[in-house]
Amino acid sequence: MISLSYLLRFLEEDSPFGDITSDAIIPKTLNTKAVIIAKQSGVVAGLEEAKMLFEYFGVKAKQRAQDGQKVEKGQILMELEGNARKILLVERTALNIIGRMSGVATQTRKLVEKIKGINPKIRVAGTRKSLLRDLDKKAIILGGGEPHRFSLSDAILIKDNHLALVSLEEAIKKARAFSVYKVVEVEVESLEDALKAARAGADVIMLDNMTPEQIEEILKALKREELREKVKIEVSGGISEENIESYAKLDVDIISLGALTHSVKNFDVSLEIVKD
Amino acid sequence: MISLSYLLRFLEEDSPFGDITSDAIIPKTLNTKAVIIAKQSGVVAGLEEAKMLFEYFGVKAKQRAQDGQKVEKGQILMELEGNARKILLVERTALNIIGRMSGVATQTRKLVEKIKGINPKIRVAGTRKSLLRDLDKKAIILGGGEPHRFSLSDAILIKDNHLALVSLEEAIKKARAFSVYKVVEVEVESLEDALKAARAGADVIMLDNMTPEQIEEILKALKREELREKVKIEVSGGISEENIESYAKLDVDIISLGALTHSVKNFDVSLEIVKD
Amino acid sequence: MISLSYLLRFLEEDSPFGDITSDAIIPKTLNTKAVIIAKQSGVVAGLEEAKMLFEYFGVKAKQRAQDGQKVEKGQILMELEGNARKILLVERTALNIIGRMSGVATQTRKLVEKIKGINPKIRVAGTRKSLLRDLDKKAIILGGGEPHRFSLSDAILIKDNHLALVSLEEAIKKARAFSVYKVVEVEVESLEDALKAARAGADVIMLDNMTPEQIEEILKALKREELREKVKIEVSGGISEENIESYAKLDVDIISLGALTHSVKNFDVSLEIVKD
Amino acid sequence: MISLSYLLRFLEEDSPFGDITSDAIIPKTLNTKAVIIAKQSGVVAGLEEAKMLFEYFGVKAKQRAQDGQKVEKGQILMELEGNARKILLVERTALNIIGRMSGVATQTRKLVEKIKGINPKIRVAGTRKSLLRDLDKKAIILGGGEPHRFSLSDAILIKDNHLALVSLEEAIKKARAFSVYKVVEVEVESLEDALKAARAGADVIMLDNMTPEQIEEILKALKREELREKVKIEVSGGISEENIESYAKLDVDIISLGALTHSVKNFDVSLEIVKD
Amino acid sequence: MISLSYLLRFLEEDSPFGDITSDAIIPKTLNTKAVIIAKQSGVVAGLEEAKMLFEYFGVKAKQRAQDGQKVEKGQILMELEGNARKILLVERTALNIIGRMSGVATQTRKLVEKIKGINPKIRVAGTRKSLLRDLDKKAIILGGGEPHRFSLSDAILIKDNHLALVSLEEAIKKARAFSVYKVVEVEVESLEDALKAARAGADVIMLDNMTPEQIEEILKALKREELREKVKIEVSGGISEENIESYAKLDVDIISLGALTHSVKNFDVSLEIVKD
Amino acid sequence: MISLSYLLRFLEEDSPFGDITSDAIIPKTLNTKAVIIAKQSGVVAGLEEAKMLFEYFGVKAKQRAQDGQKVEKGQILMELEGNARKILLVERTALNIIGRMSGVATQTRKLVEKIKGINPKIRVAGTRKSLLRDLDKKAIILGGGEPHRFSLSDAILIKDNHLALVSLEEAIKKARAFSVYKVVEVEVESLEDALKAARAGADVIMLDNMTPEQIEEILKALKREELREKVKIEVSGGISEENIESYAKLDVDIISLGALTHSVKNFDVSLEIVKD
Repeated sequence: MISLSYLLRFLEEDSPFGDITSDAIIPKTLNTKAVIIAKQSGVVAGLEEAKMLFEYFGVKAKQRAQDGQKVEKGQILMELEGNARKILLVERTALNIIGRMSGVATQTRKLVEKIKGINPKIRVAGTRKSLLRDLDKKAIILGGGEPHRFSLSDAILIKDNHLALVSLEEAIKKARAFSVYKVVEVEVESLEDALKAARAGADVIMLDNMTPEQIEEILKALKREELREKVKIEVSGGISEENIESYAKLDVDIISLGALTHSVKNFDVSLEIVKD
Repeated sequence: MISLSYLLRFLEEDSPFGDITSDAIIPKTLNTKAVIIAKQSGVVAGLEEAKMLFEYFGVKAKQRAQDGQKVEKGQILMELEGNARKILLVERTALNIIGRMSGVATQTRKLVEKIKGINPKIRVAGTRKSLLRDLDKKAIILGGGEPHRFSLSDAILIKDNHLALVSLEEAIKKARAFSVYKVVEVEVESLEDALKAARAGADVIMLDNMTPEQIEEILKALKREELREKVKIEVSGGISEENIESYAKLDVDIISLGALTHSVKNFDVSLEIVKD
Repeated sequence: MISLSYLLRFLEEDSPFGDITSDAIIPKTLNTKAVIIAKQSGVVAGLEEAKMLFEYFGVKAKQRAQDGQKVEKGQILMELEGNARKILLVERTALNIIGRMSGVATQTRKLVEKIKGINPKIRVAGTRKSLLRDLDKKAIILGGGEPHRFSLSDAILIKDNHLALVSLEEAIKKARAFSVYKVVEVEVESLEDALKAARAGADVIMLDNMTPEQIEEILKALKREELREKVKIEVSGGISEENIESYAKLDVDIISLGALTHSVKNFDVSLEIVKD
Repeated sequence: MISLSYLLRFLEEDSPFGDITSDAIIPKTLNTKAVIIAKQSGVVAGLEEAKMLFEYFGVKAKQRAQDGQKVEKGQILMELEGNARKILLVERTALNIIGRMSGVATQTRKLVEKIKGINPKIRVAGTRKSLLRDLDKKAIILGGGEPHRFSLSDAILIKDNHLALVSLEEAIKKARAFSVYKVVEVEVESLEDALKAARAGADVIMLDNMTPEQIEEILKALKREELREKVKIEVSGGISEENIESYAKLDVDIISLGALTHSVKNFDVSLEIVKD
Repeated sequence: MISLSYLLRFLEEDSPFGDITSDAIIPKTLNTKAVIIAKQSGVVAGLEEAKMLFEYFGVKAKQRAQDGQKVEKGQILMELEGNARKILLVERTALNIIGRMSGVATQTRKLVEKIKGINPKIRVAGTRKSLLRDLDKKAIILGGGEPHRFSLSDAILIKDNHLALVSLEEAIKKARAFSVYKVVEVEVESLEDALKAARAGADVIMLDNMTPEQIEEILKALKREELREKVKIEVSGGISEENIESYAKLDVDIISLGALTHSVKNFDVSLEIVKD
Repeated sequence: MISLSYLLRFLEEDSPFGDITSDAIIPKTLNTKAVIIAKQSGVVAGLEEAKMLFEYFGVKAKQRAQDGQKVEKGQILMELEGNARKILLVERTALNIIGRMSGVATQTRKLVEKIKGINPKIRVAGTRKSLLRDLDKKAIILGGGEPHRFSLSDAILIKDNHLALVSLEEAIKKARAFSVYKVVEVEVESLEDALKAARAGADVIMLDNMTPEQIEEILKALKREELREKVKIEVSGGISEENIESYAKLDVDIISLGALTHSVKNFDVSLEIVKD
């Protein structure tokens, strides 16, 4: 649930004392129509959120595409009708949300489709590298990706910094004891630790910053020890659109990329006033 | 002023029920040291904000670099000492903030330096295409850029959508009448409108989506009519790292790029526990 | 934009545990009609805000006057119909908002009209001396005044306390370098500083706490040096309804008064239950 | 309790994107001293709140006067020392709070002293006619006044609009039944209703908009019926500094004035940078 | 007034990143009907609040019982119709609210009825021992109880910890001087202090942790001194469903129980999807 | 992380206009000592939270017991020293938090110890039946229990209402596809569904409202089909302190009780002023 109050924060940040341009030059009761148009092709997201904002200000908003759907350049995504000042007030915030979420969704879908032919069981996942967590996680799901942990509260992920402070076996043991309802994942940097983690009962093992060859070696060792079926394998670190296929050929479960959210290119979208 | 409560929102989004990994496996009273390290070179920003967050949770944080400063790959940016759980709780949020702000600051500085040799009076500006407005505007300033409008409330910018509803002359007249304390800018798409806007008393004219040749033509016309000195000229739309130099050769005042904020690549930074 | 959540804060402050009088004595489902009546003549403001509050609680509210309009004593400003408890819950907050905003608008209009015949180009401005900034700035605009800076973020105003720490020329230079999109104003206390400020490129010069004679002298000097056309002149300090005309006779651009907001007399308005 | 978060709201309203003047022209690490000075004599209030704000930003603040104390024009109220940007950031908000609260406290004290010689048992009370409730109620107390109802939740006050919907006797009966812990007051407009209210067990009777003569008549009737000792008498409506003495001569308990808060004149106070 | 934003907090706590179960398995546009059913008999409360939440999410909610009404096990309390995901999102929060408030209301009513036959003038009161103050106080009122103080701000209650710091007489004197509009209550632990408190003018005397015999003795002493009529008597401490009747036989005004709110048993209620 | 702002909400609810008793009768600068004392034996919790609140108001708070520790009746839990008004302001909120959390922790520990001798691997779990989620989940952990789902966002739990809308197999399939990082649990009401759920790959099966005999039968069938090792078994519904042992004899993994949070008895604790 992306709440209305969460969305309104962006608008309030954008208008601490109102939209002075419209207040100065647009007649107060003027009504108009407008459309939101895709300026590129891709997977659209954030329309539902944009609609909530426009409707909160009394503007009629009719979706002409659904979140998660592929759209073409030039396609109309939403039709608006209502008070001109309100449409202009919400415009930039709505476009920023659609642009961000569609950017994330489009990039996710691209990667998902790229590896689909190679290994359809592998999931493309985001990370916590985002300051717009709610928007980005929803966009990844709409793009067909795996949202991974939403926050520090919903799964246990034992990383190198934890292991600098506690031993791997003790960490997994305590994590398992914490709750049955939280998945336990461990980030490892060596074959030895991967085996230890699997034996200790981790649900997921994250192989961080490894080459396909290193990963292959670990997978073989896990199979040899009959541990492969007991854990999910996530690979992460240094994976990009360019090299993802070499990872997709491996028998892994999840490929995660921070870049899905921390360095995403916005989807190009604009709002245009329509004169009858 | 980026307030503490603004920064805490990101942390609360990242830990609705606490950091269950640390709660499960790290002893409650364990203290540790840690460092934040640049994993690339660039202009750092967000250290002040990271420091505020760590200190709020009782962790000592000592800056080893200043916001706005160039740093090298491998350089230590901050030294931390305190409760291990608290350091790990704040880690990702602090890195996300530094990563985002340093990414914006680094890209801004790069463009600023690129055009410095060509035309030192031109300013590189951001736009409102950001959902992290406070962070991004500060990062642009730290990068040496021009922050442009912060929000809908602090300057008047008459765009195509306004001009679809009111005439250019009337718009400028009403905008001027609104307040002496707000700059008035107009976005134009033709030579004719540029002249009209200058004559009507706009402070800044934005030439949107024009080629250097089209801009050149408008600049000549403005000079011919002795209007050039009366307005600032902002060029915008379709400008990137690749082609910015061709715009920098023109007699313009501001080059603005939405990409500075809406599609920025994060700066790579990490936190590492230090064992004595 | 004065947001609903901003307005609701006042109501929540007024009813932390509800309206116990109505809860105790008014039947829960009783409906009634009521009117809001001006108890004095003047310029009304805040009706839009009052309407938002009543409608949020499901009460039908029909404006019978428009914000910014002159009304007479006894005139009905709004008709209400709905649940009696809700009308009584909102009553005082709505009246406080209308009373405050109409008080500011009425006083602003009075001053605006007072100087109109003398020098129609002069603008009457408020200041930041208000803890109800959003309401007061909107009321000043509705009264026909100039809102001046909304906040510390939307224009640069170099005052005596800044000049105690940096030199005037350096201050203006740095301010100019900060952003093209923010107006730069300097408060000066002498002829010499006024000339310096104009030469250094200030957009507006504020002559603080000066007699009409002192101002006249500075205006002459500015004209002599051909600087008058390059800056706007604001006069401020010790100006009141009684002496404003002596300032209006001068060739200045803005007359600002803190009293417009910090010591305003509320507009008298009441709500009356109407029995059919 | 006026909470820090309540006070910070005013500052956030005043600096959505920071104090751009100081950010532009004052060196980031410059420290300075400053003083807050009374520019008029009166009863000061709000120093505690101003101190909280300055200290939140790391500025040392030493009170040189206490809230509720009489101060003279020119007297130093607070000494400040710390980061110059922070002092300037907080300046206006702190002065607005002190100015408002001292204005209310000064006016309250003036009226309290005015009637003290005539009838020392009478209390001067404020009303709910204020959008700055927390600040104003505290200021009234500091001025020596009676705060009256804080909000709709802490006492029952049956007014004309309630009596348009329910009968006086039924209203009082239901109000009494609501809670033992809430005082029950009734506003009446006639001798008859005053007697009814007293008989029905009201704790306080408010005589609204009556002349001293009308009040006198009601007081006599109440005494005649031996009801005077059973109720407190509040007089309200049309009472001002000018005519308060004619009310103070009556045997009433409370004189309340909306003007104490809705139309208060700010106390004049300023902050000055001190150079060593 | 229990505000919508207060209620939404509970929902936001329950869904920081949405309801992932419904998001994963329930079709986005599926509509359904559902009912809320009492699983026990008792006094229902919180339906109004549940309705507000469902309607905020666009679900039609029709009350089939009124808050404060007795309902039987198996009785339908509310009929719902709307988007299935939204109904399931709100379900637990709505049931938690109804369960809590009905639990408090049911227990209150039970005690009220228990003592009604013995001494109908005695009121059953709650205390401030609750972290869900708004909900609990409303539920007590709906159950027929006396809400007592809502908070620290609406009545004066001088307790043992105060009396460890100031003398009883001085405390009452200062409390009386604070405001006419706030009831003054004193908690006493001896006959002597009860008499002192009554003589000093307390409105209510709380006899804390006394046996019926001790209370009886104090009541007699108060009558003997003709003070009984001048104060209300509240008895508190160690009173439960089991022994309340022995207190109800005494000539007291209020019996208060912390257990009404701090240790309440939830009312059993469930939501069931209805298939046509 | 239970944030300070979350805790302050309770205090703000308890003092919208301050603590008028202390404001009226306790000298402003009076300092005192006080202690928080257990009035019963049990497992204490909430001391950390109470400490945060006292320290926020400048009161020194020294814990004399640790959260999660068993304490005896009469034991001192915390020593306080500081401004008397602040101690009294925070008193009730702090005690309410300690009372609630210690109540939950004490009851959890009791049940945990009750079943420890019978079947030490079984975990005692809470549910989402709480409006004080953050406090209660932490208290359960401190009591030695299993926190279960924190919210709708951190694990998937398919319940009867979901199964009224989608088939069990499809629901599990979609849930599994949603994310690798979220545990998938299904509530079943029959042997047949339990087998279906285990085959379809649920992580946890909740047997709701079943007798020990019915559960035994399902466990046997799961073993027979070699599915028992693949799932965790949670039993829930109608389990109380009285009958928990009969469930603990079964080969189940989790016993969950809504009563741990929705109907908890507060732990008895008080604050006492200490006079030197």
